[in-house]
Amino acid sequence: MRGYTAPLTPEGRSSIVPPPPWHFSGEMLWISYRADPDACRALLPAGLTLADREANAAIVFCEWQWCGDDEAELHDPERGQFREALITLDCEYAGRPVARVPYAWVDSVVPLVRGLLQGLPKLPGAVHLTRAYEVGRASSRKAPGGRFNATLTAQGRRLLTGAVEISGRAAAPPALATQPFVHTRHLPGWGALPEQNDLVRSKVSGVEFGAVWHGRAKLDVADVEGLEVAALAPLDVLDGYVFAYAETLEPGGPA
Amino acid sequence: MRGYTAPLTPEGRSSIVPPPPWHFSGEMLWISYRADPDACRALLPAGLTLADREANAAIVFCEWQWCGDDEAELHDPERGQFREALITLDCEYAGRPVARVPYAWVDSVVPLVRGLLQGLPKLPGAVHLTRAYEVGRASSRKAPGGRFNATLTAQGRRLLTGAVEISGRAAAPPALATQPFVHTRHLPGWGALPEQNDLVRSKVSGVEFGAVWHGRAKLDVADVEGLEVAALAPLDVLDGYVFAYAETLEPGGPA
Amino acid sequence: MRGYTAPLTPEGRSSIVPPPPWHFSGEMLWISYRADPDACRALLPAGLTLADREANAAIVFCEWQWCGDDEAELHDPERGQFREALITLDCEYAGRPVARVPYAWVDSVVPLVRGLLQGLPKLPGAVHLTRAYEVGRASSRKAPGGRFNATLTAQGRRLLTGAVEISGRAAAPPALATQPFVHTRHLPGWGALPEQNDLVRSKVSGVEFGAVWHGRAKLDVADVEGLEVAALAPLDVLDGYVFAYAETLEPGGPA
Amino acid sequence: MRGYTAPLTPEGRSSIVPPPPWHFSGEMLWISYRADPDACRALLPAGLTLADREANAAIVFCEWQWCGDDEAELHDPERGQFREALITLDCEYAGRPVARVPYAWVDSVVPLVRGLLQGLPKLPGAVHLTRAYEVGRASSRKAPGGRFNATLTAQGRRLLTGAVEISGRAAAPPALATQPFVHTRHLPGWGALPEQNDLVRSKVSGVEFGAVWHGRAKLDVADVEGLEVAALAPLDVLDGYVFAYAETLEPGGPA
Repeated sequence: MRGYTAPLTPEGRSSIVPPPPWHFSGEMLWISYRADPDACRALLPAGLTLADREANAAIVFCEWQWCGDDEAELHDPERGQFREALITLDCEYAGRPVARVPYAWVDSVVPLVRGLLQGLPKLPGAVHLTRAYEVGRASSRKAPGGRFNATLTAQGRRLLTGAVEISGRAAAPPALATQPFVHTRHLPGWGALPEQNDLVRSKVSGVEFGAVWHGRAKLDVADVEGLEVAALAPLDVLDGYVFAYAETLEPGGPA
Repeated sequence: MRGYTAPLTPEGRSSIVPPPPWHFSGEMLWISYRADPDACRALLPAGLTLADREANAAIVFCEWQWCGDDEAELHDPERGQFREALITLDCEYAGRPVARVPYAWVDSVVPLVRGLLQGLPKLPGAVHLTRAYEVGRASSRKAPGGRFNATLTAQGRRLLTGAVEISGRAAAPPALATQPFVHTRHLPGWGALPEQNDLVRSKVSGVEFGAVWHGRAKLDVADVEGLEVAALAPLDVLDGYVFAYAETLEPGGPA
Repeated sequence: MRGYTAPLTPEGRSSIVPPPPWHFSGEMLWISYRADPDACRALLPAGLTLADREANAAIVFCEWQWCGDDEAELHDPERGQFREALITLDCEYAGRPVARVPYAWVDSVVPLVRGLLQGLPKLPGAVHLTRAYEVGRASSRKAPGGRFNATLTAQGRRLLTGAVEISGRAAAPPALATQPFVHTRHLPGWGALPEQNDLVRSKVSGVEFGAVWHGRAKLDVADVEGLEVAALAPLDVLDGYVFAYAETLEPGGPA
Repeated sequence: MRGYTAPLTPEGRSSIVPPPPWHFSGEMLWISYRADPDACRALLPAGLTLADREANAAIVFCEWQWCGDDEAELHDPERGQFREALITLDCEYAGRPVARVPYAWVDSVVPLVRGLLQGLPKLPGAVHLTRAYEVGRASSRKAPGGRFNATLTAQGRRLLTGAVEISGRAAAPPALATQPFVHTRHLPGWGALPEQNDLVRSKVSGVEFGAVWHGRAKLDVADVEGLEVAALAPLDVLDGYVFAYAETLEPGGPA
């Protein structure tokens, strides 16, 4: 019985998630902001501390294309595209800067399961980002004055709304976007099988940033009854960024 | 940090899957059939043997409503409904009859993740079943002559097609529907974290069958290039059943 | 070139909507309420007057199965099921009681287009209703104490939320549910083709009500920025009803 | 009562389709091919003749972003993005080259209804195209050797599959892509309201082509039981093209 994940089968070609490495290319709308530091700290596992600079958090909306080494997903694009939104916190672990994701949302099943396997706490949600096309008026422009918008709807509610109006090229991508992730690979117990809670460090290679544009941002986190994410609503919205990004992800080691 | 699954949060109300027990009520379209015994055996883990009676397999289409103990999902039905299709094999384990699911498909995220946690190898798919309503012509009837149809579309293909034409009441539900499941809770390794492969026995209580109707069945498993499920296509299609079913599911012990 | 709707083809089997009559069977959650009479009147075309009794409006959540005369949709249930929410106003036309639908939402394309053809102003939306199954705890019960819930999400927002707690059997269905519809079949102009605005009367036959249960209701219409439906939010929520319903719909005449 | 389409309301802001003009920007995967000329002719209304050159047809997969004059859809991108597949035939009308679309599919409601209003025979379907991002391995490249793939799934079946491998820049876009459309705005009768069948000419402005790349193409039209589109399966697959495209669409006049 073979396969990277269930279902395991004689030929191993039926797994819901194909084996790593996974290659990702996409577009990001990144909004740096200040969240309530205590609310951030309440979401950190032991060992991580909040690097509480002015911007201690970011909300990121992503449109991704991905594939395994055989590029099968590029040839059948129904399998190789998804959109994601996530909140990332600027942290330190063992004296070094890291990023920590307390919440993520994704619009399809394969990346959701892959997230759980690597410790990314993904929830289902619908994400949309304005796109820049080469021609025409129904297109945002990566140029001064260009406007990009993004939304997340989860559990039937518009939960996150973000916008960036570009003022110019940024000197560099946001620092938090270059820090490795420390995730918790958590699995509930099941009968005699014990709960698992492993701090893991992400392992990426082939990181590429396209041209990074930045500008003034807007950001809203809705206060939906019963959803805890409202605790991370912005106290202050800082810079917004728009850029293409790529990476290759492999299983990481312990943090 | 609390919660049954990720995301873990201060209040523990953000988990993608709420804690068990989970209560299920629904409608089943069940088709018993004979699959190639060697193809069935090739999908069994060590310890399970195929109980190779005339009907050694069934394909089941299900429409479910579910909730936790607080019934929150019944009050917000967007969260509490899903549809599922699965193949189940008639097996023995440690000398006793059990059921084994080599493939399952489900149309939404929460039951898919819950399946992986308990060892049910769920894949994404769209399932539809004809419904019986109390009145009108656009309704199937649970009565002689009543026709029920069901389909599964996965990866953009119509993969499973089933139909039952009711001839009368059955003396009992299909025996395989009453046998406990033995699943494999499989998780791939992640860096230094080892692969897991645990045989687990399902633990259900509160099992109820509604009136069980049966009749002549049709069943098709499409031979889609690259999908291994075609190995379980029917050699012979046997009885079909239509019935309501309920159970409560808790974490099971080792098999 | 043949067909009931586009695409017209040599064999006429490719139309998005098959030809009438259409048969419908389903479950309704019906909530009678009082809306602001001026807001109701502002939505009525010339000729219709508001019958301004205590309950002048209802919000109805519906789960439908439908088919044409050949029952093809019952045999391929992916095509024959949808869910709908609508607001209906208690009106008079030419001295007789009628119903008028200012807004409707539906979760799939074929019934949306069919709605436009007959003058039902359907918008896209996701509708969910609690279901009653024959067995189990994850099921509402059509019996005193039974609770039924329903929601509508449109444009990424939870727009309508309704609930009924059953107190007993009703003597009759709500009167408004038995009044014929007067719709406006509206089509915008297109170049030299003129705008159309035709008042049409619905023509139904084969109306059947299942057992009608009623009880205390809750109803919320969200005030989403930019959406005009908030003008019809309830001033007073009256009885709620739960019942199965069936009808056959044919093209109606002028009102 | 105001609005471009139903629902008509006091403020006219609730229409399912906002008023024209509509601006479109997007990416196209265009495959020129030879279909059976008789099958093409069987789909043409009186007045149109097939310009039966070697390539008499094309299948086009499109990813669109659109907005009205107020650009509201760009600011709420959930409303402003869709994907489409269509078949277009190379025709003549009144002695001039035109294009005729016998079948189109679209993945969301607003463009589907807008299609019907202008005479484009749109059906529901899921369309996916490989994307070119600025960086990374999980991206197609608009450069020699770049591969682009596209699929359409409708009624639960993978109906169209296309691929282009780029060999270089094309001297010009395909001629058929520059010819105006002649559509039939068809509406079934409804009771006393008569059927409508109006030949209309599309009216576009602001047409822009991005860089046009071309290369070797593959194309498959599945022969699904009951679907007439199989009559337009390719006899010979000719050039494939990949390009960005933009236009503004206004109501057209009679053909």
